[in-house]
Amino acid sequence: MPDLTIIPITLFLSALATAAMSASASIQAVRHDFDAFGATVLAVATAMGGGTVRDLLLGRTPVFWMTDLTYLATAIPVSLVVYLWARRIDAGGGRRHRILMYFDAVGLALFTLTGVQLGLAAGMSAPIAIILGCITGTFGGMIRDILCNVTPSVLKEDLYATISLLGGALFVSLRYLEVDPLLTVWLTFAAILVTRTIVIVRSIRG
Amino acid sequence: MPDLTIIPITLFLSALATAAMSASASIQAVRHDFDAFGATVLAVATAMGGGTVRDLLLGRTPVFWMTDLTYLATAIPVSLVVYLWARRIDAGGGRRHRILMYFDAVGLALFTLTGVQLGLAAGMSAPIAIILGCITGTFGGMIRDILCNVTPSVLKEDLYATISLLGGALFVSLRYLEVDPLLTVWLTFAAILVTRTIVIVRSIRG
Amino acid sequence: MPDLTIIPITLFLSALATAAMSASASIQAVRHDFDAFGATVLAVATAMGGGTVRDLLLGRTPVFWMTDLTYLATAIPVSLVVYLWARRIDAGGGRRHRILMYFDAVGLALFTLTGVQLGLAAGMSAPIAIILGCITGTFGGMIRDILCNVTPSVLKEDLYATISLLGGALFVSLRYLEVDPLLTVWLTFAAILVTRTIVIVRSIRG
Repeated sequence: MPDLTIIPITLFLSALATAAMSASASIQAVRHDFDAFGATVLAVATAMGGGTVRDLLLGRTPVFWMTDLTYLATAIPVSLVVYLWARRIDAGGGRRHRILMYFDAVGLALFTLTGVQLGLAAGMSAPIAIILGCITGTFGGMIRDILCNVTPSVLKEDLYATISLLGGALFVSLRYLEVDPLLTVWLTFAAILVTRTIVIVRSIRG
Repeated sequence: MPDLTIIPITLFLSALATAAMSASASIQAVRHDFDAFGATVLAVATAMGGGTVRDLLLGRTPVFWMTDLTYLATAIPVSLVVYLWARRIDAGGGRRHRILMYFDAVGLALFTLTGVQLGLAAGMSAPIAIILGCITGTFGGMIRDILCNVTPSVLKEDLYATISLLGGALFVSLRYLEVDPLLTVWLTFAAILVTRTIVIVRSIRG
Repeated sequence: MPDLTIIPITLFLSALATAAMSASASIQAVRHDFDAFGATVLAVATAMGGGTVRDLLLGRTPVFWMTDLTYLATAIPVSLVVYLWARRIDAGGGRRHRILMYFDAVGLALFTLTGVQLGLAAGMSAPIAIILGCITGTFGGMIRDILCNVTPSVLKEDLYATISLLGGALFVSLRYLEVDPLLTVWLTFAAILVTRTIVIVRSIRG
């Protein structure tokens, strides 16, 4: 079995995932008439939620955002800027919803990657690591929907969590095949993002 | 004080509780028009939810289903089979709801038992062990209802959590009276299941 | 840097916070037609929720109410008494809602204090300690609202969590300035309670 220690996803990628999820939550906050403060709370809960649940399940406490302030320092300003910007977009069409979904897809891909890696690094079996990737990728959005008092879209839209699970399975497979770690990360990221984007584009056109 | 180490509930009983709760969630998923994937996620969250919260509160991490794949390997196929079957039942009457409640009652009884035992084994006082039994028995259904965006029935139906608490109290009492461990398990199981069934039958007839 | 070990908030204050939050939940339970048992469950979840999340995030397990029965022994009788009393108040006006908000404000102030202190004592940075104060103060009410199937008011009302965060910041500042510990506690408590009360009174008059 190959070395399963964590492949460093650069700080840039982690911050990007946090930013993407915060942005998606801010747009949803505008759609639900939250004020700026509520939007920030929603964004932080969405961006940190999945990783927090993952850390709690693994017993990794204090959880990640408590020992590294980068995550909060990313989520809070991004959510405020996106909130102010999203309020100015014409509310008529589904444009805001579409942008929300693309941000969300980037977050899904990156968070799935970190979850699977942390699961493997903690000695979990492959199925559990894949599930942890899915939890890290999808629970933030689920918390976002529960706080907005709507049925979580992850439960109604079958090509969301499934893509995260398949992406996680791809990552584990490539690692076991001893593919280059960095290549594995990029292939998995691309696979999740491209698949999810195709699903979004089709649902819009359909 | 008698030996309070865990009385082994056989793998069969644990799997049965997981299967019962998964089945109840799948039926609810059909009632709320979830697709097969959403039904599976809902079933896993329902079947694992109570025990996960219990393990987190006790600090037993990684939580139970992460180190023993039996639970997931039970919940996933059962939820899929029940989902496909429940979709074929005539949706007219309350028949699906009735079946859901009986499955749920079996899960309530078995999960209450495991929660109380793990609480005592972790050195908790009797009241806390009884509450842990209730959390293990009822939180899965509560998570199910929150994800379906309905007020958790456990809060509206007083003879649900109460029966779990009384069952837990019976278990602790029998243990302190040094009744045979296996007899204690079966008496508690029977007491919860019979009481809950009477309540269900009365509410249907009334 | 001054000594940041926990300033003992007397048992009286802790019990008072628990009682205040339980009372607010019982009043909300009456407004949502819960029965006495549901009201008790809701009250316990509301009064323990914030501190439980805080303890889980910090890895302080078993969580606080499992090792000290004072909290449950306070929440349960208070919630029952308030439930029975609130059912007798004329449901016409907003009087019940007003009383709920005052109880809630006392809970917010006291729980914020305990959260910030435990955060600092666990070696967290000032921003994280302040956020833990806010989580301890506001998550109970958020859980209460989710269980009642309404959008959490903390997300819609910007002068709720903000006041908790500012109170936490005041506490940390006074501690770093080496102000007398007990004075720090009372100043923070008064600042949160007075500010929140002004906001409530204005919203009622406005």
